[in-house]
Amino acid sequence: MKKNAMGRMVPDKIGDRIVTPYEGIYTRRPEGRKAARWQRFTDNQGSKVLHSIDETIDRVGLKDGMTISFHHLFRDGDYVINQVLDACARKGLKGLRLFSTALFPVHKPVIDHIKSGLIDRIEGSMNGPVGAYVSQGGVLAQPAVLRSHGGRWRAVEAGDVEIDVAFLAASQADVMGNATGVFGKTPCGYMTYSGVDAQYARKTVVITNELAPYPVFPFDIQQGWTDYVCVVDEIGDPDSIASGTLQITKSPTRLHIARLAAEAVKYSGYFKDGFSFQGGAGGISLAATKMIGEEMKRAGIVANFIMGGVTKLLIDQLNDGLCRKLMHGQAFDRWAIESLQKDPGHAPIDVGTYANYDGACATAMLDAAFLGATEVDLDFNVNVNTHSDGRLLHGIGGHQDVAHGASVAIVTIPTLRGRMPVIVDEVTTITTPGEVIDVIVTERGIAVNPRQPELKDRFIKAGLPVKELADIKAEAERLVQPVKTPVFGDEVIAVIEWVDGSAIDSVFKVEGWK
Amino acid sequence: MKKNAMGRMVPDKIGDRIVTPYEGIYTRRPEGRKAARWQRFTDNQGSKVLHSIDETIDRVGLKDGMTISFHHLFRDGDYVINQVLDACARKGLKGLRLFSTALFPVHKPVIDHIKSGLIDRIEGSMNGPVGAYVSQGGVLAQPAVLRSHGGRWRAVEAGDVEIDVAFLAASQADVMGNATGVFGKTPCGYMTYSGVDAQYARKTVVITNELAPYPVFPFDIQQGWTDYVCVVDEIGDPDSIASGTLQITKSPTRLHIARLAAEAVKYSGYFKDGFSFQGGAGGISLAATKMIGEEMKRAGIVANFIMGGVTKLLIDQLNDGLCRKLMHGQAFDRWAIESLQKDPGHAPIDVGTYANYDGACATAMLDAAFLGATEVDLDFNVNVNTHSDGRLLHGIGGHQDVAHGASVAIVTIPTLRGRMPVIVDEVTTITTPGEVIDVIVTERGIAVNPRQPELKDRFIKAGLPVKELADIKAEAERLVQPVKTPVFGDEVIAVIEWVDGSAIDSVFKVEGWK
Repeated sequence: MKKNAMGRMVPDKIGDRIVTPYEGIYTRRPEGRKAARWQRFTDNQGSKVLHSIDETIDRVGLKDGMTISFHHLFRDGDYVINQVLDACARKGLKGLRLFSTALFPVHKPVIDHIKSGLIDRIEGSMNGPVGAYVSQGGVLAQPAVLRSHGGRWRAVEAGDVEIDVAFLAASQADVMGNATGVFGKTPCGYMTYSGVDAQYARKTVVITNELAPYPVFPFDIQQGWTDYVCVVDEIGDPDSIASGTLQITKSPTRLHIARLAAEAVKYSGYFKDGFSFQGGAGGISLAATKMIGEEMKRAGIVANFIMGGVTKLLIDQLNDGLCRKLMHGQAFDRWAIESLQKDPGHAPIDVGTYANYDGACATAMLDAAFLGATEVDLDFNVNVNTHSDGRLLHGIGGHQDVAHGASVAIVTIPTLRGRMPVIVDEVTTITTPGEVIDVIVTERGIAVNPRQPELKDRFIKAGLPVKELADIKAEAERLVQPVKTPVFGDEVIAVIEWVDGSAIDSVFKVEGWK
Repeated sequence: MKKNAMGRMVPDKIGDRIVTPYEGIYTRRPEGRKAARWQRFTDNQGSKVLHSIDETIDRVGLKDGMTISFHHLFRDGDYVINQVLDACARKGLKGLRLFSTALFPVHKPVIDHIKSGLIDRIEGSMNGPVGAYVSQGGVLAQPAVLRSHGGRWRAVEAGDVEIDVAFLAASQADVMGNATGVFGKTPCGYMTYSGVDAQYARKTVVITNELAPYPVFPFDIQQGWTDYVCVVDEIGDPDSIASGTLQITKSPTRLHIARLAAEAVKYSGYFKDGFSFQGGAGGISLAATKMIGEEMKRAGIVANFIMGGVTKLLIDQLNDGLCRKLMHGQAFDRWAIESLQKDPGHAPIDVGTYANYDGACATAMLDAAFLGATEVDLDFNVNVNTHSDGRLLHGIGGHQDVAHGASVAIVTIPTLRGRMPVIVDEVTTITTPGEVIDVIVTERGIAVNPRQPELKDRFIKAGLPVKELADIKAEAERLVQPVKTPVFGDEVIAVIEWVDGSAIDSVFKVEGWK
């Protein structure tokens, strides 16, 4: 174990890979050459089309110990990961590394596959049951690795993770493997995450429930990246993509936070024609995004782009002419997918363009962004991965990418969840270093990072309720009830990577609570 | 020098690169890994925008002996190559390798840059004056290398050619380097050729005359591939993209050839709903393409796709519902560009998808295609590069790619040009081996490759004028006038690569004519 620049202990190695401790937000730059992709060749007389996952596993030569990758666009409605893992189990495979972009409650069967030894390593987000299970420790051969969207792209391009077989759900594909998630009977949205998997995997399999005439166009995945097209009955349920969090909050407290966040953008100094922001999908962010739209209308200004996980609200803002382009990170509801099918201003981009750590990604062009947190601390550090009870229940998503990219990164949080404090002395897990968080908006006031004195002045001049973060914390603490705190073991069950591939924190095994 | 499987002599080496003699159409497959691309990093506070080519050359670190690349989408209206070479000359650079996709008469100043020593190697097509000049020999440090569109893409991916700096003309770009050739004041069409240059070059420069708000979308070149955006006054003249050859022929002889070619497609066995063909841009091909459209209407069938260099004729066929998709290789007139801006069925693809040598490119999906020739011989070998006078005046274009991909590759030629024979005993240069040419259509009849007996039977049953190629040649020879034949020297001035990177023929210095 080594201590990194945040004072957190991180392992020396994960498997054979030497861990680089986090040294600062921009200290490590990509250099030299990327990993080399594999040549592909399909016999001119052959066909890429297969009709069973079992046969596909044989054809790609999947073996014990290999790494398999997936995307999570169907979110809690995904059928592909479970189908492929069941097929792997039937083959008696062991020791696979699971490299999905994310796991959801629907992937609870992964726990059984860990117990059976089919999966012994995971790199990727674990939302819900698998994360909770892994938090108990002792179940994987090495710590899990969590990365941001951009960080995962970087890791593959840098060769940190070599994918043996990518299994990519696509709602429409042709015989040559041009594939899309936007069209077809069960669309999941543009395959934002999968370009890097498709390009770098030793073998790339498109799994589809709809073979369409050649050529499928527009395509998210190109035929030249695809080795096989596996046609199955079902790949996922689009109705499960949207979840309950996609409603604008009705809570007066949260609406107040949203109002303050919108005001913070309005008086940030960036609010003018041609500005840009990232909307969020949580209840507060949605409300704040809506309020900014109303402010834009009043001011008669148009954003060059709005970006984010896309919901009906952002589609409405695009169609209302509030932005010149809507940059698409992920579809969060069916309106987002329908819009991708027809709105020329709706611009799907891959995660490389969105957030690759090359200093020139789309998040770096953001003026303002709304972000969430499970905890923040007095150094403005943010935790989005673990709860205060120590359990690993969420992925990083684009949090780090957006926070370090946006000129004004705004975290919107209530000071209490139930009677638990959200502002703490020290976050359980550091996901995003305070250095890149500019503003924390709560129902009790707005705290500005001391690194941003001009921003603070602007807010004060505008009459916004600016307070010290410590004061907000103190106010909230009077209402806090005593909570059980986790007892951590020595075992590192997961490592949180910063966007540059260094380790910013470790998540330790939860032995119990006191 | 070594003799290859076509009996042609090819050099042992070109510079340091060992030449692989051609061994057959499918003997060499891409294996292992591709070349590794370079990491890029732009400082978060920096900008990619520069305002002079001279400054750009300094910033990218262009040095003597390096390789610079360009695309030819503006064709004879390109201003970028000459501007960049002039700037290189001002810097006093020497010994550059010019790796443009093609050169046109407008690039005649390249000759002076060869004379001055600025350019000492060329890899790429040389249409017109530069080719004629190089044909005289003794002017370049090593033989030029000509590749098909797909072969060039393959060569870069395989690492056969390492690009130091790509200078890519784009009619619109943003500050991060998202760039397009489709929109803007002076569009040149989708940047089909340039994806591979942008990805693999050590430094990638987008040269544009129009900086647009971020993000430019849709983009042909992604910001993640771009190091600098150089803003200049003019990049090219779109009105010079279309040339006189884009007219449907009015010659009765050529119209007769077109009619026979259309009939050949109709009776090929592939002419049914869902079929596909590549239209050509020459006068005969255009006429034949129009006639096929009329046959499709009569038969009530729709093509899954039509592909090719795109002209108004193909746009009309797309809009008439004659095809489900129009796959776009290159814009040949302003209608093609206007259509790219608005027709969702018009599908721009990069050359990797079009013709990369991976056994699974779009050309491999073609049922039928029309191709040209300067000469054909009795083994069905085709020459498109040199004239019978020995001079290298044309590039390969997509000839090899389409010929080896299409199920029925049809060469349409008059038997005489002036009083010169087109069917010869042995072609001056082998561009495309006869093995992949299925049909040769002349005004005197249709010759079918003996490798395609079923096709010949179908044509005979349909009452088409099927003849032996030797008989057609003999008929034409009665009308031939004596011609001057070239006297070749020993010096190889260019090597013609087959799609797999092997050398299918050499072009020798022309010492004179007798």
